[in-house]
Parts: sequence; C-alpha cells; structure tokens
Amino acid sequence: MEIILTGNDLTVEKVWAIAVEGARAEISREAEAKLEAARTLVYDLARDETPVYGFNRGVGWNKDRKIEADQIDDFNRKLIYSHSLGIAPEASEAEVRAVMAVRLNCLLQGNTGIQPAIARRYAEFLNAGIHPVIPERGSVGEADITLLSHIGLAMIGEGDVNYKERRISSAEAHKLAGLEPVKLGPKDGLAIVCSNSFSAGQAALALKELKDLADTGEIVSALALEGLNGNTSPLDPSALAARKYRGQQYSAERIRKYLEGSYIYQPDPRRPLQDPLCYRGAAHINGTLRDAVRYAEEALLTQINSTDDNPCVLTDERRMISVSNFEVTSLSTAFELLAIVLSHVSRASCYRMIKLANPELTGLPRFLSHDGGASHCFGTIQKTFTMMDTEIRLLSNPCSVDYMALAGAIEDHANNTPLVVQKLRKAIDNMKYIYGMEMMHACQAVELRKRGQELELGRGTKIAFSEFRKELKLYESDRPLSPDIRKAYEFIDGGVLLKEVRDKFL
Amino acid sequence: MEIILTGNDLTVEKVWAIAVEGARAEISREAEAKLEAARTLVYDLARDETPVYGFNRGVGWNKDRKIEADQIDDFNRKLIYSHSLGIAPEASEAEVRAVMAVRLNCLLQGNTGIQPAIARRYAEFLNAGIHPVIPERGSVGEADITLLSHIGLAMIGEGDVNYKERRISSAEAHKLAGLEPVKLGPKDGLAIVCSNSFSAGQAALALKELKDLADTGEIVSALALEGLNGNTSPLDPSALAARKYRGQQYSAERIRKYLEGSYIYQPDPRRPLQDPLCYRGAAHINGTLRDAVRYAEEALLTQINSTDDNPCVLTDERRMISVSNFEVTSLSTAFELLAIVLSHVSRASCYRMIKLANPELTGLPRFLSHDGGASHCFGTIQKTFTMMDTEIRLLSNPCSVDYMALAGAIEDHANNTPLVVQKLRKAIDNMKYIYGMEMMHACQAVELRKRGQELELGRGTKIAFSEFRKELKLYESDRPLSPDIRKAYEFIDGGVLLKEVRDKFL
Amino acid sequence: MEIILTGNDLTVEKVWAIAVEGARAEISREAEAKLEAARTLVYDLARDETPVYGFNRGVGWNKDRKIEADQIDDFNRKLIYSHSLGIAPEASEAEVRAVMAVRLNCLLQGNTGIQPAIARRYAEFLNAGIHPVIPERGSVGEADITLLSHIGLAMIGEGDVNYKERRISSAEAHKLAGLEPVKLGPKDGLAIVCSNSFSAGQAALALKELKDLADTGEIVSALALEGLNGNTSPLDPSALAARKYRGQQYSAERIRKYLEGSYIYQPDPRRPLQDPLCYRGAAHINGTLRDAVRYAEEALLTQINSTDDNPCVLTDERRMISVSNFEVTSLSTAFELLAIVLSHVSRASCYRMIKLANPELTGLPRFLSHDGGASHCFGTIQKTFTMMDTEIRLLSNPCSVDYMALAGAIEDHANNTPLVVQKLRKAIDNMKYIYGMEMMHACQAVELRKRGQELELGRGTKIAFSEFRKELKLYESDRPLSPDIRKAYEFIDGGVLLKEVRDKFL
Amino acid sequence: MEIILTGNDLTVEKVWAIAVEGARAEISREAEAKLEAARTLVYDLARDETPVYGFNRGVGWNKDRKIEADQIDDFNRKLIYSHSLGIAPEASEAEVRAVMAVRLNCLLQGNTGIQPAIARRYAEFLNAGIHPVIPERGSVGEADITLLSHIGLAMIGEGDVNYKERRISSAEAHKLAGLEPVKLGPKDGLAIVCSNSFSAGQAALALKELKDLADTGEIVSALALEGLNGNTSPLDPSALAARKYRGQQYSAERIRKYLEGSYIYQPDPRRPLQDPLCYRGAAHINGTLRDAVRYAEEALLTQINSTDDNPCVLTDERRMISVSNFEVTSLSTAFELLAIVLSHVSRASCYRMIKLANPELTGLPRFLSHDGGASHCFGTIQKTFTMMDTEIRLLSNPCSVDYMALAGAIEDHANNTPLVVQKLRKAIDNMKYIYGMEMMHACQAVELRKRGQELELGRGTKIAFSEFRKELKLYESDRPLSPDIRKAYEFIDGGVLLKEVRDKFL
Repeated sequence: MEIILTGNDLTVEKVWAIAVEGARAEISREAEAKLEAARTLVYDLARDETPVYGFNRGVGWNKDRKIEADQIDDFNRKLIYSHSLGIAPEASEAEVRAVMAVRLNCLLQGNTGIQPAIARRYAEFLNAGIHPVIPERGSVGEADITLLSHIGLAMIGEGDVNYKERRISSAEAHKLAGLEPVKLGPKDGLAIVCSNSFSAGQAALALKELKDLADTGEIVSALALEGLNGNTSPLDPSALAARKYRGQQYSAERIRKYLEGSYIYQPDPRRPLQDPLCYRGAAHINGTLRDAVRYAEEALLTQINSTDDNPCVLTDERRMISVSNFEVTSLSTAFELLAIVLSHVSRASCYRMIKLANPELTGLPRFLSHDGGASHCFGTIQKTFTMMDTEIRLLSNPCSVDYMALAGAIEDHANNTPLVVQKLRKAIDNMKYIYGMEMMHACQAVELRKRGQELELGRGTKIAFSEFRKELKLYESDRPLSPDIRKAYEFIDGGVLLKEVRDKFL
Repeated sequence: MEIILTGNDLTVEKVWAIAVEGARAEISREAEAKLEAARTLVYDLARDETPVYGFNRGVGWNKDRKIEADQIDDFNRKLIYSHSLGIAPEASEAEVRAVMAVRLNCLLQGNTGIQPAIARRYAEFLNAGIHPVIPERGSVGEADITLLSHIGLAMIGEGDVNYKERRISSAEAHKLAGLEPVKLGPKDGLAIVCSNSFSAGQAALALKELKDLADTGEIVSALALEGLNGNTSPLDPSALAARKYRGQQYSAERIRKYLEGSYIYQPDPRRPLQDPLCYRGAAHINGTLRDAVRYAEEALLTQINSTDDNPCVLTDERRMISVSNFEVTSLSTAFELLAIVLSHVSRASCYRMIKLANPELTGLPRFLSHDGGASHCFGTIQKTFTMMDTEIRLLSNPCSVDYMALAGAIEDHANNTPLVVQKLRKAIDNMKYIYGMEMMHACQAVELRKRGQELELGRGTKIAFSEFRKELKLYESDRPLSPDIRKAYEFIDGGVLLKEVRDKFL
Repeated sequence: MEIILTGNDLTVEKVWAIAVEGARAEISREAEAKLEAARTLVYDLARDETPVYGFNRGVGWNKDRKIEADQIDDFNRKLIYSHSLGIAPEASEAEVRAVMAVRLNCLLQGNTGIQPAIARRYAEFLNAGIHPVIPERGSVGEADITLLSHIGLAMIGEGDVNYKERRISSAEAHKLAGLEPVKLGPKDGLAIVCSNSFSAGQAALALKELKDLADTGEIVSALALEGLNGNTSPLDPSALAARKYRGQQYSAERIRKYLEGSYIYQPDPRRPLQDPLCYRGAAHINGTLRDAVRYAEEALLTQINSTDDNPCVLTDERRMISVSNFEVTSLSTAFELLAIVLSHVSRASCYRMIKLANPELTGLPRFLSHDGGASHCFGTIQKTFTMMDTEIRLLSNPCSVDYMALAGAIEDHANNTPLVVQKLRKAIDNMKYIYGMEMMHACQAVELRKRGQELELGRGTKIAFSEFRKELKLYESDRPLSPDIRKAYEFIDGGVLLKEVRDKFL
Repeated sequence: MEIILTGNDLTVEKVWAIAVEGARAEISREAEAKLEAARTLVYDLARDETPVYGFNRGVGWNKDRKIEADQIDDFNRKLIYSHSLGIAPEASEAEVRAVMAVRLNCLLQGNTGIQPAIARRYAEFLNAGIHPVIPERGSVGEADITLLSHIGLAMIGEGDVNYKERRISSAEAHKLAGLEPVKLGPKDGLAIVCSNSFSAGQAALALKELKDLADTGEIVSALALEGLNGNTSPLDPSALAARKYRGQQYSAERIRKYLEGSYIYQPDPRRPLQDPLCYRGAAHINGTLRDAVRYAEEALLTQINSTDDNPCVLTDERRMISVSNFEVTSLSTAFELLAIVLSHVSRASCYRMIKLANPELTGLPRFLSHDGGASHCFGTIQKTFTMMDTEIRLLSNPCSVDYMALAGAIEDHANNTPLVVQKLRKAIDNMKYIYGMEMMHACQAVELRKRGQELELGRGTKIAFSEFRKELKLYESDRPLSPDIRKAYEFIDGGVLLKEVRDKFL
C-alpha cells in the first residue's frame, strides 16, 4: 500500500494506514516543488539582515541572541540536543510512524523552508522502517519541541531507533538501511521540532480508534437491546427526523440496519412500554459521540493539512514572518470534549450491563446465571466494569489549561495537547474492555433467552453474536473471569466486529 | 418589536430579543395549523386503547399504571403539582421569557399534541408580561420536568408570577391581564413539563452573551496589544490562511479591522521580535472560542427548532410513539466544552494584564503606576483577576455525567444540562469582570505610553479607549479599586463596546 | 454573652457566638500587654535603619522601595486604598463579624506590632455592631489582603458599613456610634491586611455548620433506617471497636443513642440479612466526616490562635523578621478534603431516599405514595435531590492549586483558601436541602409503616419525627413540592433537630 | 530480616521491609491462638441455623440463597473463581507482597474465622517467594474482592504466580516450594476476598514513598535555596513556633539542619529582602505534606491493624455478625487529600526551577547556561517538568465518589480506593522526576555560583551536592537531556539522598 502525501488531503484513515498497516509514504511532485521554492526563498532572505526567529536569531527566551553564519551547524545540532527532553514511556512504533507521517505532510505545505532532503528523510525513515525512539511525556503542546527533537536526533545519526523489531543506535540503523545521516542547515533544527505533529499523530490514531468505537457501540448496544427484549421505538426514523440532531440520526440508522429482521420488531406483551434510558438513549448518546468526533475531526484535519511552523515562510509573497501557528487550542479542547462524551458512552454501557443482570427487567435469571442463580455468573463483574468507567470519568477531567508561564514568563499559554490526547487514549482502551464485557452480557442474555424459543436476531447482530461465540462460549459454570474479560477485550480491539459486521453494512 | 415563531427558525438573537429586549412573540399561521392537526390526531388515537406514555398511562416508574378518562383532569393537575420541585435561586425574568419562547417554538413543530390554547398561552404570557416564578435548580436535564412544571402551575392559576415588577399570585395576574387560567386536557401536563426548554432557554442567553464576549475579547485584546506596543505579525492573513483554522482566521480578521491605522503597524526598534504568547496567541485562543461557539450553536439551534417531547406525535403518519427525544447529551457536552474554552480565554486575558504591569516588556512604569512606582496602582489587582480566573477554572470541570440511576433505576442516564449551563453563565459573568480589568490595564498603558509621544490608535480601538475613558479616568493616585472594577464590569456588561465598536465594523 | 479573647483559645463555637449570636468580644488583660510590648518594640526598631517589609519598605514587587518617615501616613492609607479590591457578592454580616473576631484574636498573639488602638477597634466595631462591607471575591488566599483592606477602609472612616440593619457610610456610622476613625501609623496598613483572617473567619462558620451537619446526619439517617426497617448490626460497638476507626465509632455511638428503644432492635423475619450500603455504611461514612472535621479543625484552630502576619514581631527576642506565616496550604487543603467527604455523605443520603421509594426493599408503597401509587408522591423529587448532589460533586473538585505567578512572578504560590471555603459553604447549603428531603422521606416511610401496627421509634428519632411533623404533615395528595422542600430545608437550617434531639443526648 | 506480625503493630515501614526488602513474615503466638479460637467459634455457630452471610448464605445480591453443607467446598471454590475479575496491568511483586502482609496482619485480629492454615499460607507464600499474579484494576474498593480472589486462586493451586523471577503456574510453584494447595472450608472464600487489603497494601507502599519524598523535598529545596542565594528568615524557629502549624515546624527544622553552616546564613547585600514564595514557603508547603501524611497514616495504620471482614467474628462474645467494616471512606479520602497536597508540592518545585533560570533573581546566567547563554541549557526543560506537574494536577482530581449502585442497586456506596491509591502512586512517580530535575537545577546553580568565590554549603546539602555530582556533572555543553533526566530520577528513586543525608541527620 502506498499513500501519496500532498500536504492537503491527509485523513485519519491514511495516517492509520501508514502507521498501523505499514503503508509506504510518497511525496507528490507538486509538494516537492513547494519545498524547493520555500528553501530557495529562505536562502534569499538569509542574505538580508532581517532578524528571523530560529534562523539568524535564537529561540525562546534567547530570541534576542544573534546566530552568526559559522554557528549555524552548531546552533542547529545543539538546538536538537537541548530540546531532547522527553520522559518515559515511549511512544509505540505505530505512533512514531503516525507522527512522522503527519509532520511530513505539514511540511509539504511549503511554509517551513526546511531543507528538502530532510523532508524526504521522513518518508525514507517510514519506508525503511526506521522508527526513532520518542518518549511521550514532556511537551506542553505549544509545539511539541521537546519530543519531536528525538526524531531530529535520529536524523543526525544519534540516539536510538527501533528497526526491524530491534532497538539499535541510529548510526547503525543508517548503515543497515544504506542511508547517510542528514546535515542540518539554517532553520532545520527549528523546522524539525517546532510543530504539534507529535500530538497530532497520536490524536489521529486516537480519533481513528474512537470512530471505530462509535461503530462498535452501535453493534454492541443493538445486541444488548436484543438481550433485553427492548423497544425499538426510540430508533424510529421519523421521530428522529423531527428531532434533527445529526449524530442521533446517524447512529440510529446504523443500529436499525444491524437489527433488521430481529425478533424485537415483533410485538411482545411482556415487553414494557419504555426501557431504561441506557437502552432508550443508546443511539442518542452514541450520536453525541458522532457529533463530537465530527467536531474534533474538523480540527484535526485542519491541523494535519496545514502548517504549524514558526516562522512561517510565504513563498509567493517572498516573506518569512513570525507567527503563532503552533497555537492549537481548538484541537486540544476538541479532544477534551471527546473524553467527556466518552464518559457518557461508557456509563450508558455499564448501565446496560447492570440492567441485563436484573431479572425484573429481563425475565432472565439473576446475573444471567445459566443455572438460575446457583452460580455467581455476572454478579461481581459489575465492580470491574464500573471501576473501568470510574477511571474514564477521572480521565475526562480537563487538563489543557493547567500550565505555567515559562521561559522568562514569555510562554504564558499552553494546551497540553499531548496529555489531553494521551488521557483520551487511555480512556479509549478502557472503553474497549467495557464493550468487551457488554458483549459477554449481551451474548449470555441472548443465549439464555433463546433457550425456550425461536429467536431471530438482526441481520448484523446475528453475525456479531456468532463471531463472539467463536471466542467465548456461554458462561455455564463459574470459572475465573479475568481471562474471559481479556479475550473479550481482544475481540473488540482486534476489529472482528467492524470487519464482519460494520463493513458489510456500509 | 415582534418575533414570529414558526418552530423552525428561532435563533439565539431572537430569543434574546424576546427575553431581554421585550419583543412580542407571535405564532405563524402554518404553525397554528400544525398544532391543531396534532391535537386532532391525539384525540383520534385516544379512542383506541393503545397505551401511550403520559396520555393514558402514568409517567416514570408509574408508566405501567393506566389513566382512565375521568381521571385525566386530576391526573394532569397532579402531574404538574408533583413535578413542581425546583429549588432556589429563581431564574431571572429574562430567563423565564427565554424559556417560554423556546418551549413555545418547540411546540410549534406539532409533535406534541398539546391543546393549542395552551401553546398560545406561552405567547400570551410573554406578551402580557406574566412571568412564572421558576426556581432554577432541581433538574438533571433529562427533560427539565421539575422546573417547567412551575410554568404549568402558573398556567392553571396557581403559584406566583412576576408581573409588571411585582410578585403576585398567578390568579391575581390572570385577573389583571384579563386571562382565564387554562384547563388541562389529556397529555397537556406532560406536554408542559417534558422538554429541555428550561436549559435551552438559559443556554440561548448564555450563548448570546458568549458570542458577545468573543467580540469583546477581540476589541480588548487589540487595545491591550497597543498598550504593550506589540507585534501584529501573528495576525497576518496569509499566514493564517496557510494555517486554515476557521476560528483563528475570523478572530484575526476582526482584530485587524479594529487595529487599522494603529501606530503598532509602524516599525519600532524597541519592539521585541516576539511577544508573550498571551498576546501572540490572542486571536488564536479567541478563535477557539469562535470554533466552540459554532459547535454549540449548531446543537442549540437544533434543540430550539425541533421537538423534544415524549411521546412524539407524527401527524402525517398518524402515529404517536414513545421516544427518547429529550436526550440532549450533544447539547450538554457542547456547553461543557464552552466552559473549558472560556478558561483558556480567561487565563490569556489575565496574563496579558500581568505583562502590562511589567516594565521590562512594556517600557512603562511598574504596575502601570502613573508616578513611576510611588503608588501601588495595578499591583495587587493581580490577585483579584486571577482569583476570578480560578473560579472559572473550577467551573470548567465537567458535571454532565455525574448522575444517579433514578425512578426504580430506570432513569439511568442524565446530562445535568441546567447545571452545565448555569455554571457556564457564572463563568461568563466572571469573564466580564476580567475583561473590565483588562480594559483598565490597556487604557492605563496606552495613556502612559502616549505621554511623551504621538500615538495613533486603531480605528476601532481608538473608540474603545475613548468610550472607556468616559467611565473611568487615568488612575492617578491610589484610591479604592473595588468601585472601579465594578464600573469596568458594567462597561463590559452594558454593551457599549459592542455598540460603539463592533457594530460599526461589521 | 461575652467572649474574652486571649489569642490562644478561640474555638469555632466562640466565633459562632460572636458572629451569629451577637456575643460581645473583649480583649484579655494579658493580650493587651502583649500588644503594647510589640508596638513598643516596633518603634524601637524603627529608629534603626534595618529594612523591614511594609514598615520602612514597600510591599509585594515594590518591596525594594524605601518608605520615608514623612510618607508613613500616606503610605498606609494608600496601601489600604490600593488593596481594596474585592468583588461582589458581599460577605454576610455574620461572616464579617467572624472575620473581625478571628483577626482580632490573631493580633492578640502580639506578633504584629499593630497600634493597640487599632486592635481594640475590631472589638469596638463588633460590640457597636459596625460591620464593614466586604466583597468576598478577589483573594487568592496568600493572605487575604484584597479583602481585609475593606475593614481598613471602614476603620479610617471611608467606604460603607452595615450598621443596625442599614447600609451607611463609615463616617456616619462612626458618628452614630460615637467613635473617631483611626489614624494609621507605621506598619498599621500591613497589619490590617496581611492575614488570612477573611478565609479563616468564613472557614470557622463553615466548620461549625459542618459539625452540626454531622450531628444532623446521624439523626436523619437513624430515622431513615427506621423508615426502612433496617438492620442495626453494622452499629455493633464490639465490631466497631475491632475496626478501630475513630470517626466510625463516634458516629455509631451517637446513632445508637438516638435509636435506643426502637422497634428495629426487635427481630423481624421480613427484615433482610443485609441492607443497602447507604444504610449499612451510614455511620461509617458520617464517621469519615467526623475524621475529616477533626483534621480540618486542628488546622483551623492553629490558624485562628496564632499569628499569620509578615513581618513577624518577636517581642521577647526583640526582633522583627520577614516570614511566610501567611502560608496556609494546610488549612486550604484540609477544607478541600471536607468537600470531597461531603460529596460521599450527600450521595449516601440520596441513595437512602431512593431506597425508601422502592417497595421491594421497604414493603411500603412505591415512591412512598400514601394511596399506594395513585399519587406521584416522591417519584420525581429524585431528580431534585440528585441534582443538588451533582452540584456538591462539582464543588468537591479541588481549586487550591490553580493559581498564577503574580507580582513580577514573585508571588508564585497560592492556596485560594477563600474560594475553597466558599465552595464548601455552598456545598453545605445544598446538603441542608438534601437532609431536609431525607427527613421528608424518612417521616413519610415511618408514618406509612405505622399504619397497620404499633411501632416504637428510638428515644431520639421519636423526637425528630414529631418535631418535623410540626412543620410538614404526611404527604397525602399531590401538591407542589417546592414549598415543602423549602420548609424542610429551613427545618434543618433552623437547628431544631440539634436543639431538640442532639443536645438532649449529649 | 524477620517481621513478627501480631495484628496490632504493623507499620508502613514494616510493610516496606517485607514487600521491598524481602523480610520474612512470622505470626506471633498470641495471634495464632486468636485464629484458632475464632475458627472454633465459627464451627460452633455453624451447627446452629443462624443465617450468616458468606457462610451458610450467599454473597451480594445472592445473600438470600442458602448454602448447604455439601455445597461448601464447591461454593467457596466458585466464589474464588467468580470473583477473579482483575484487569491489567499487574501489581508488581513488591505490591503483591505488601498486600499479602497486610491481609495476613488483619486476619491476625481473629475476627475472620478463617481456617488458620490459610492464614499461615500468606506467610508461607511470602517466605517462599510465591507471588500470585494480581491484575490491579477492577475493584471499587468496597472490599477488593475482585482482586484478592487472585490470591485465593493461587492458594488453591490455580492461576499463575511469580516465583524466583519466573512466571509459572501456581500448581508448579507449589511443587517446587514443597507445598500443598489449601482446601477451602466454610467462610474461607469470603475470608480471602472480603478485605480492603489490596488497596491498603498499595497504599502502604505509596505512603512510605511519600514520606520519603517529604524528606527528599526538604533536602532538595534547601539546596535550591543555596542555588538562589536566598533568605533563611522564613525558617526561623521562633516565628514558626508563634505560627504553631505542626508540619511547618517539622519541615523547617529539618531544613535548618541540612543548611547548618551554609553561606546563606552570612549577610549578603545582593540578597533581596524577600524571595519568591516558592522558596519562602518551601518548608511550609512541605509541612502541609507532613500534616496530610500524618492524617493519612493514622487512617492507614487503623486499616492495617484491624479487621475489615464481613461478617465479623467476635470470639469473646461468641457472636458472628453482619457488619460494614469494609467501609474505608476515611482511608480513601485521606489519600485523595494526599494527591491534592502533592500537587502543591510539585508546583512549588517547578517554580523554584523557573526562578533559578532567571538571572534577575539569581545573578547567574540565563537558564543556568555555563557559558552565559550561548548554550540553551535549562531553557526548554521547563516544558518537561511543568508537563509532569500538569499530570499530577490531573491525578489530583478526586474519583472516590464516582461509583454506580451495583448488585441489584444494593451496593450503592463505594470509595474506589484502589484507583485513588494508584493515581497517587503515578503522581509520586512524576514527583521523583520533578525532584530529579530540581537537583539538576540546584547543583548547576550552586556550581556556577561557586565559580568566582568560596561558598560553603550546609552540612547536609553539601553531601547532597556531592552525591548528585557523582551521577551527573555540570552541564557544560548542550547534549540530549532525556538521559540526564532519567539519571536524576533514578538518583531520587534510588534513595541515595535519604541514606546519605537524611539518615545521617536524624
């Protein structure tokens, strides 16, 4: 697989392809031309004596110090050194790939003035599988300069990289891959570090996972509704059209597709008039996730298809100016929103499970015990999933605004975008566990319900049920549940539902 | 002024006009027809024995109890009684008007089946100035049934209302206004209470104020930039076009308009290469507010121009079904986002003030003391505005997901939308104080800077300066600052800046 | 009533007596002597040229500026002016009295060097009923200089005061009370403002109320247990002695006293083996409040019986040194803890009510409806009390650490103690509403339970029941509940339970 | 090393010795006797037909189901199975040891009625080095039944354990260690799982680390004060005695010891009158940590030296009763407090570093650059440590109250104690990084300051400086800082400061 990067049309799906699925990255011809033009301009301007931040002047509080021509190499190398400030844990190789893909695409806008060979090096690293080691903590998100520097280190042949499943020195990896380390020219140090691509790369993966979770939630909650023998009237398209919320309509439409042909569309006198809100509102709450994802994706696509460099090179206008294009509060706060919304999604899933364990609502045995209650079955597991939900709630607290004024108090705003994204990723991981457990509940309920009767599931949920049953059978006697929970998590994480259900109904 | 409500095109500005500026509300002819058609359908259906929530069946946990025909009046009256559960403080009269306008507009969709005379009564109350007393706490936002019931109380001639600046009994107000209390028919009780219009009404006013604050922030920060003698390069339209964020471009464009002709566009060797981020990023951070407002407004306009009733009457399809249209998680979480973003806006304003007090950055006296430091001037005030910011930070913590499962654990999701909106309104009020204090700083800085030199302000900021100086003069000797802070707050709250500056540059 | 202040033995109860019950405040003879000695020392030292903060040097960022002898009066007056920076709302008169009592007591340590006449003036204001108007927002708690200055204003005859239920100018109040405004000498300005007494005064009242709430909670939950027909075994003294937690043992002991003689000590086959945790753990959770109150009270008593002035006058050692005695992080964080604990207390109360509405657990009608469900009774009220709980949860978020570096970045730590205390006070007020509603539930349950049978209540709970029934009768038919909720709140707030039940069992 | 457990006198230091330093655990003779007596009573009671929770009745929602004699083995085994519900990550081996030591000690109270052989098995596991694998997530802290069950699994020879640095099956480990798996009798399953020992074990380690951090903070901040050339007057014992806060006095005393003989006690005209609050208040803020640790330690010592079992066996009284002794809200909230306080400690450390980078305050080169600013030195690192602080701030948000009602809504209170402790442990780990970075700053500042002059450090800080310099030299030219930060972290984590400095001054 190959993705051609143009600077303008990167999507989270393309980032995922490069990062996770190992697609190659190529630079479009037009983008190459922009890189060259911008670099030429930088040299033209360098002949003048206009002070330019990070070019012939220092950075941060040192912005008033002049950089002489013979100091350029040393200045840039030391800039990389002094900005290599990350703290463990390390970003995964997939994350590093995402970061490099995003950084490269942003460079292709041609507003950086970076040496074109260095821009190409991102593609070469990606395609050769050279993945710089990047610790993931240490950036306040006002450009991730402390983390992206670790890519710079690797590019000049220092520090460590992961290469073909081994951790080796960057120097050795270069040899093995037949590459020469790059030589840093004017502005190259700053061009490498001054970007939010670290957060944006992690954010792209997070958003891809969250979109998948939104799909997953529709399938899982549909199956749970069948487990409950619940009502479909809240999914009514006319009523939702009268309501007009976009996300709600979208989620409900998907759920209706998965439920087509299900027994729950048949009248049943035992079915109560209204179900608990966690069922009645499942599509609506998932719809809120759709709405929030749409908002965050707009911000993220803007981010990964534009320039966040400072200074900004404007080739056509033959100018290079000091800007605040690294300011990503819109991105950061959109991701804060996602965590809050996820907390609603998570809580609704937990309540659906709690309700499935309640005989009064289901007509099934307490705790879905196959033997009518002699075994504990899904009693104590309520502690497990609600604890995971509580952690999501904790991670939904905002942190973007909790910064201090730095660098002589000049850097007095920040977004903490990396932390915002990282806490969301943790929440997403918890959510996969929770949906795994909801699958355990929904399948158990459906199977117990099927015992004495014919029961047709929906066209989509039928597949979901049978795929899950390949991994985990009916819980027929008390056994340690930890391994089952792990398997259910892997079932969700592995994407079977999406491949076997969602993708067939798109 | 008169606003014609159609059910489809209500805006926050129209809500403001009705609520704050006393505009009359009229119902469009098409909407009247929809009301009638829906009511007719309800009666048609009532002849059948289909169980309908709140119509011929109870509500909440009592949803399985049948309501006989001869109990209808009693049932509806008691429904209103038993849902009148609000706790102090009371919503302001403007808020009550906003709530009634929103509720009426939603009814006009024709999905409620309410008695048309009752729908019209909202307009009659608005136009007669009868404002039911509504305590504002007590709803978890899964429809504001505990609060909207207080309107119902007033409509049946019970409880208290505010009428022509007096608090009197509803019965008396009816007499004075020449109205008869309404008689509740089937479904009318539920139609009155089952809606999120209380939150939505308050939310509409909050959003209007926040949009105004976004405008205010652009003016104030522009003037502060002149106080600092700061750089305009981060406002460069080409660089922002390359960045692509919508909100940033919009805010920067507005700021550039206000600054047209300003001395800060002239070169000045004393001006440093880069200003503190609170200045450099002022347009960008305000741009995030623009982005978030856009998101929240989309949700709110959906909310106030659609039906949130349950059950939902679908006249064309001759159906009435149980739905979850009262589920407003998208609205609630959008307003959670606004508070988080406001926290960034607030902090940036505070840092701008702190920087204006710093001689090293301004070349002006410490704390902007007119006498060079003998007086304290704006030293200790830093505690005041940062404390107000800390309260905003506190109010930016999410609360929408902190609910319990109620009503036999059936109501196991909630949004706490009223509390979400109310905490935002408090934050907005704090922000007005903060901008008031930023005006004090910016004007003081500009005036001190003008002492030894000609200094042309921008076309818009010039007006801002002179309007503010009509209220508060140069701080020339230590005097108690509390009254000044109050005046500056009232200057912002009173809308002079918006009228004299924004509106002239639109 | 008269309280003699010594500087060493002030309690929250004494503060309450002065603040709320109008007790007079007198200064002990020993304390007077200390004041004089310290003042004498200050004058002795003033003859030297040692630089002393706020004495012959400026304050804050101006701490390097010298104050000449002839500037002393002007300096102190302007210090008061420039620190008068509070923002609405105003502290209540009771709060202002608490603040003045605390400030006075701290001064009596003799570490301030204040003019003794000014110290006495606090007592004179208290005893004459002159209450300076103090806006309550604007302090970050690193000494409440921006708020206490408003007392200084009043003392020099400026600003407004509340006097005999009227708001008048300080000058007029002085005349009416036959007092002369004070003349500020060296260090007097700083001595008036540099203290945490504003927070400490509010904190003392909050703590008194919280201790009362702890008492209230024991009575209310005991009565609710009777409403439930619950188990007393978790209150077993031997089992709690084996558990060893101090607070748990204390609360359980109190509850056992109130329940002495109750029918719930009789065996009853219908009583389940174990009750919901909100009942089983009621004493334990309230015990945590006891533990936390003990911790916070230790900090607060330290605070109000010691000096927080800077500089600190050490009379015996004939020294005056610069200190950080205004640093009250221990106090502030102890009050953060209280809000978190209150959130547990609140939630437990809410769940107790929810359980009382559940026939399966109580054997009583659903929602405690007297007519077995025809009326709604306590169905929808669950939204009201859980919303109040959600607000407490919001207020339990910490804010003490959310500050910025001020005054040339020199003031780079703060505690936000006033805001911490104010949010706790709001939470306490909400809790009174919640306990009011729990009384409504508990009494309704007890009364319904009594219908068909003899039912002896406990010695204490019996009184609680009958006192409450003087205010609110059995809820026999649906009527608007807002007024009832208000009455129940006032019942709790008014202290009847404490007077009629607690005090008789101490 | 050997620790004799009595049930009554376990300390966090003893837990640490067993958990981290590998001390053996022995059971005192008196405790053995108590175990036997309680077990005898249990059998006596079993002959009666009194229903006892978890003994002859089920647990949780199944508490009304009778357990027949011939089901006991199966019931207990399945109880262990069905409660094995933990989710990754796994607790460390040290944590597992701490948990087992705490659980054993609580059992020794003799209130459990556990089979004595099983109690002894905890000691046997500890002494043989058999460490059951326990995933650390999944408990809401209302007894850690979902996690402690994993110990039960290992005891009956199932699941995995860590043994001599290998992960093997429990069955194999038993063989290798020459042990037979235990046989579960009545109540044994519940006795194993129904306890808060998982949280308490982790909490004990956390508290030990936090006490060490309090010691560390005193040393590091003392050295930083020397780096600043700051004032010692806020440490004055007389002034602090007048202030009376216990923690402040304690911390200041320690700091004074470390600083004895330091040059900063000599007068220096360049030293300003007052330092930034982060220096002035260092002892005070650390003192708050001392205060909070004292509070939390009281709760924790109560917890680990008492019984939290339900039901509770009262041997002397020959009773076994249902209790709520698993209710640990006091413990949980005390640990919430610790995280909030740590956030203050962290922020103060960050500001001290920021100040050391500021030439105006230090008279040293900007960013402590050895070459006066040509190198970046400690400029960008400010982003790194403030980001770590922001994460601490995030972790300081409370989570104990965020639970749902479980198990038929009967379990309607929880404390989330494990999550509370785990987030504190993460915050503690971050704090070690921050103190590592403060050591880098303080040593750099001291060394630069020493360049042109004799400079005697304090008796303790002198050692701190030289020990740190064994690990990290003066930062003389820009090099990647990530490895240095890691080394500095390891220096703090490794305990050198405590061994070489603290322990010599105790």
